[in-house]
Amino acid sequence: MNIDMIHAAAERIKPHGRVTPLLSSPFLDEIAGRRLLVKAECLQHTGSFKFRGGWSAVSNLSEADRKRGVIAYSSGNHAQGVAYAARAHGAPAVVVMPADAPALKIANTRALGAEVILYDRYSEDRDAIGSTLANERSLTLIKPFDDPLVIAGQGTVGLEIAAQAKAEGVTTADVLVCCGGGGLTSGIALALEAHAPEMRARPVEPEDYDDVCLSLAAGTIQSNPPRSGNICDAIITPQPGDLTFPIMNRLCKSGIVVTENEALKAMALIFQRLKVVAEPGGAVAVAAALFHADKIEGDSVIAVISGGNVDAPMFKRALETL
Amino acid sequence: MNIDMIHAAAERIKPHGRVTPLLSSPFLDEIAGRRLLVKAECLQHTGSFKFRGGWSAVSNLSEADRKRGVIAYSSGNHAQGVAYAARAHGAPAVVVMPADAPALKIANTRALGAEVILYDRYSEDRDAIGSTLANERSLTLIKPFDDPLVIAGQGTVGLEIAAQAKAEGVTTADVLVCCGGGGLTSGIALALEAHAPEMRARPVEPEDYDDVCLSLAAGTIQSNPPRSGNICDAIITPQPGDLTFPIMNRLCKSGIVVTENEALKAMALIFQRLKVVAEPGGAVAVAAALFHADKIEGDSVIAVISGGNVDAPMFKRALETL
Repeated sequence: MNIDMIHAAAERIKPHGRVTPLLSSPFLDEIAGRRLLVKAECLQHTGSFKFRGGWSAVSNLSEADRKRGVIAYSSGNHAQGVAYAARAHGAPAVVVMPADAPALKIANTRALGAEVILYDRYSEDRDAIGSTLANERSLTLIKPFDDPLVIAGQGTVGLEIAAQAKAEGVTTADVLVCCGGGGLTSGIALALEAHAPEMRARPVEPEDYDDVCLSLAAGTIQSNPPRSGNICDAIITPQPGDLTFPIMNRLCKSGIVVTENEALKAMALIFQRLKVVAEPGGAVAVAAALFHADKIEGDSVIAVISGGNVDAPMFKRALETL
Repeated sequence: MNIDMIHAAAERIKPHGRVTPLLSSPFLDEIAGRRLLVKAECLQHTGSFKFRGGWSAVSNLSEADRKRGVIAYSSGNHAQGVAYAARAHGAPAVVVMPADAPALKIANTRALGAEVILYDRYSEDRDAIGSTLANERSLTLIKPFDDPLVIAGQGTVGLEIAAQAKAEGVTTADVLVCCGGGGLTSGIALALEAHAPEMRARPVEPEDYDDVCLSLAAGTIQSNPPRSGNICDAIITPQPGDLTFPIMNRLCKSGIVVTENEALKAMALIFQRLKVVAEPGGAVAVAAALFHADKIEGDSVIAVISGGNVDAPMFKRALETL
């Protein structure tokens, strides 16, 4: 896993992906107590950065593997990213999703042409389900984060952050990243190491699901005990990946933990000031910038909005915090 | 008023403005019955395209005029655009706003450092109030649409549409524009004439406020009778401007009228599929593309989201339509 793989993924993604904008608002700068630049990856195809990893992996398949198809397990955003990329490449896609994933994410994945198989998040093992299906149908498994091609795709967000922040005059900053298994965080960390060495990636996680923060603090992989759902469904994972953790452990600064209510408040302020739609898990990095300013260093901070696939009732709940 | 003024405005705006993205979604294409490209100008500084016209006008002032300051009358978006540009140029700004403008727009304009003077939309004449104040304090009046520098600034949206659509392989299309007094529509029409001659601008207006549509049909300026408020506050004007109408009359195809409910439904679909926030008046062009497909020609259509400055209660009302 190295920067060349990220550059190669960028070349494959370039003709199809969006360079998402780096947004800002003087009103948010005031709350954050410093300049806040927000990478609006919710504006990526399929509404999240997961398009990049999906496209990176699918576009790299051999003709024969492409024809047989791909399989992914996902709470929703990776599902949509893989389904979109598979359809564009003429590859069949099977997606294993938890039955309690947001309705919009399940519906979108189906509408993008994927075969969706639902499972019980608390009693069944998605990895086992995915592996069995992959073997039965000779499908290529595209893991949500612990896959070099997926990490390389997500890393292209870091390439854009380095270039766009530089154009805004910012070369030194903490880069706050919404973190589940660490695919996006580790990819961005690698890209920054090569292209913005004075920027450091920092994972942000929801309370009770702070496995990456704990792992970075301990220097070894730590797990969270299984718990019932959190509104930040997109970034709920039991522990960092075997590939992603060593990268984060080498390159990232300490993580930051935010509450569900802080994520909702951040969604509302993102609505009001940046005019984009963030889902709860996609808003945690901005929440950290706004409500945990004391844990951040420097005159500027960068935060990634990782996704915007939120149902209307949850969005209304966020707006209630205004 | 010519294309050179738009190019000159683009040069002044370039170091400060955002090139807003051209978004799309396969789900919206399906509803529209053709490929729909959406220019998300709600992501511009201050949440609307009005930043461009404000910046174009303020950045062109002499040093002496800049020091004396500027005045604008506006229901809110032009107010914020002028206030933002004035503050960045160190110019005092006075803004005359209707007392029933959205609370967020009034608060933002004040927070951007402008002196806000409220008036009654139904009993007072904002032009008269503006002129009197401008004379008393030797302020430069920046009109909301009928000003060559303002039209030139708004026209830069058209330059970007021409380039971005071409990059997507689209050179022939109706370009639907949310239309109040016609500053944005006429500016885009001029830019397209020069840079995308097979694209034609078309104004979109809310029901009962279709003065530009009526004027284009008649070939002469027509007015709507004064009525009580419409949720599309940003684009409610009694008639097109003396400068904007001849440009629109020469270059635009017929206008399209949408209902308030169609604007709300478009806001909800823009939330769900494009992950951006549109205000009611900013959503009418997308509403026309989605719900008046029979009035549109060609395999592709382009629609501008002109602004996203909407209060939470109105946004919730839009989400109820999902």
